[in-house]
Amino acid sequence: MTSEVLITGASGFLGRHVARAFAEEGHRVVGLGRAPWTESEWRAWGLSGWLCAEVNLETLRAIAEAPEFIVPCAGSGSVGFSFKSPLADFEATVGTLGSTLEYMRLCAPEARLVYPSSAAVYGQVEQLPIRENTPFRPMSPYGSHKLMAEQLCRSYAQHFGLRVALVRFFSLYGPGLRKQLLWDACVKFAHGEASFLGTGQEARDWVHVTDGAQLLKVAAAHADVHCRVVNGASEVGTTVLEALTLLRTAFPGAPPLAFTREAKVGDPSAYRGDGSQARAWGWAPSIDIEEGVAEYAAWFRREHP
Amino acid sequence: MTSEVLITGASGFLGRHVARAFAEEGHRVVGLGRAPWTESEWRAWGLSGWLCAEVNLETLRAIAEAPEFIVPCAGSGSVGFSFKSPLADFEATVGTLGSTLEYMRLCAPEARLVYPSSAAVYGQVEQLPIRENTPFRPMSPYGSHKLMAEQLCRSYAQHFGLRVALVRFFSLYGPGLRKQLLWDACVKFAHGEASFLGTGQEARDWVHVTDGAQLLKVAAAHADVHCRVVNGASEVGTTVLEALTLLRTAFPGAPPLAFTREAKVGDPSAYRGDGSQARAWGWAPSIDIEEGVAEYAAWFRREHP
Repeated sequence: MTSEVLITGASGFLGRHVARAFAEEGHRVVGLGRAPWTESEWRAWGLSGWLCAEVNLETLRAIAEAPEFIVPCAGSGSVGFSFKSPLADFEATVGTLGSTLEYMRLCAPEARLVYPSSAAVYGQVEQLPIRENTPFRPMSPYGSHKLMAEQLCRSYAQHFGLRVALVRFFSLYGPGLRKQLLWDACVKFAHGEASFLGTGQEARDWVHVTDGAQLLKVAAAHADVHCRVVNGASEVGTTVLEALTLLRTAFPGAPPLAFTREAKVGDPSAYRGDGSQARAWGWAPSIDIEEGVAEYAAWFRREHP
Repeated sequence: MTSEVLITGASGFLGRHVARAFAEEGHRVVGLGRAPWTESEWRAWGLSGWLCAEVNLETLRAIAEAPEFIVPCAGSGSVGFSFKSPLADFEATVGTLGSTLEYMRLCAPEARLVYPSSAAVYGQVEQLPIRENTPFRPMSPYGSHKLMAEQLCRSYAQHFGLRVALVRFFSLYGPGLRKQLLWDACVKFAHGEASFLGTGQEARDWVHVTDGAQLLKVAAAHADVHCRVVNGASEVGTTVLEALTLLRTAFPGAPPLAFTREAKVGDPSAYRGDGSQARAWGWAPSIDIEEGVAEYAAWFRREHP
């Protein structure tokens, strides 16, 4: 297979892993985004072409010829950023997706697009595990924007016959993620701190980014005009306390964990996804939380000796 | 009352009627949009200030000082256009609304915003009358974009405490509407034609634009962080055949009505809204379809003698 894969936001945390996953299967991967990546960097992640530019019709036309797969990874990926700069988050998430879908309609109508959405669209839920038909009650602008992005995908699929699939990722993590709980915790541990917001009992469903990239590949094969949606979930609820306890073993000098009991805005209290749809498509996570957290800590210590 | 009202897309069909409705109550109305309006034109519609410009943070800041009410009327307002140019329709509808909400968050957080949405968000429905909690199954990019616009309003209300209300208009019509069924029919009748798509039995719930503008004023007073939503509906289902039969009386030379039986893409077959929520807020339509269609025909004949 030497078909072309187009990834927007390919220099981001998820984007680069998606690039590598497709490249490893022999695809020619091209990408664009706003990061000033050197050629050796983007080649190391498996890209054959990279354009440092805003995502719009003109730049998409410039970088991709006839992609068979399109993965729009552009966006802030940050609940906190969406509260600080909601319009910028909207434009980075929904605006760039609009350009990507329009590019697809005009230039690559035979392609398959798989969109990495987020479990943030569910927001406050009443029942676990969270299924794909759980009602939407987003708790952050980020979650609202992801919901709008899904709606736009559905619109292009339904009204223009484009083939699309949506993956709602739970807590994606892995080497290279320079934000969120594990990152903050590593930075704190490295500085001899160990105080965290919340109670520690907040549960998350962690999905390793390598497994996430594989799921996007699987879902892309199921992209169709019905715009099917699948949870990207491990089906395991791991509390913050459990995750941080695992992580802390890599930082022998860190003090005991402490929690402020103060809730973080935009964060739900307990999350665990139902993954039966993804399993029905033949996907299963291959990296459990113990292995993934150990790998993350090792990566952090390598980067910050 | 001399408070300021900001209207985006104020030169459009709905926008200008909204401007007049607020101006008649003594408000100072300012607007912006892309139409090259002369000062005598915008003054005739009740505006005290007009800026011919794209809707963005900079232009919004330039035209409005401290609006008490904001009515985002910018957008294509056209199902047909949304099929031809979905990205442009998305940007005109959702993109300009994003800028307007961000302007409100940053510069006018105490204002009340009322958003003219559309019954197109309901799309294909199974039961009449259509209530505000009817599931969404939009049948056009236009309907999908209006749904996204509602979601963005809800996000800003919920996450930033802005006061917002949504009005889902059924078939808005009235003098000045230069598109859709009545316009097409007048043009055909004036040219001695009378052949129409569909069966004639498609039912619509017609709302006169003057009544629509009044409802926006009523709803603005109910704007709050819960982002309440109300149908703008007459509660009367009028078939295309009935509406065209009324209209045709103003064109004595027109041939008998004929229908191709070919359905129009993106058009639902029967529409009638439940208007009890709007009635509970004290609004009721004042112009019925007989009066409204006669007025429309008279306007058309004045404009095209």
